[in-house]
Amino acid sequence: AGDVEAGKKKAGVCAACHGQNGIAQIPGYPNLAGQNEAYLVSSLKAYKNKQRSGGQAPVMQGQAAGLSDEDIANLAAYYASLPADGGK
Amino acid sequence: AGDVEAGKKKAGVCAACHGQNGIAQIPGYPNLAGQNEAYLVSSLKAYKNKQRSGGQAPVMQGQAAGLSDEDIANLAAYYASLPADGGK
Repeated sequence: AGDVEAGKKKAGVCAACHGQNGIAQIPGYPNLAGQNEAYLVSSLKAYKNKQRSGGQAPVMQGQAAGLSDEDIANLAAYYASLPADGGK
Repeated sequence: AGDVEAGKKKAGVCAACHGQNGIAQIPGYPNLAGQNEAYLVSSLKAYKNKQRSGGQAPVMQGQAAGLSDEDIANLAAYYASLPADGGK
């Protein structure tokens, strides 16, 4: 499993679209807070491998291209750890 | 925007993997409860159009193949309407 604290440090750029608390403020962008950790790993790898091309996928292809497997595991652990309701 | 009640009626088959309350019980499957509605539309269309092929995407390609644009709008409205924490 990933390292939540390391993921948090890596997540600065993600927050621009997915929100500081993992709740996206922009329609069309997914909330990540509380998402299933294994799914987050799977989807980041799919973007990195260019296996997703619909919607805003090109944006995420670019973002994921520079992530190592360890980065992906850490980011997934971090977002999965956040409260799904955004900490209301 | 979609019709929440119509989406609920269509969501029976989705619940097998994504949970009765939109919280997946299976690692590797995403939670849908409280997800951004426009993102749900975008991702269902991407599966339908075979623009997603990583992870469990083939399962969703098959599921989305039979959905009309109206079905997709209704399902997105339904899952977006559910509490993100699963109604704890």
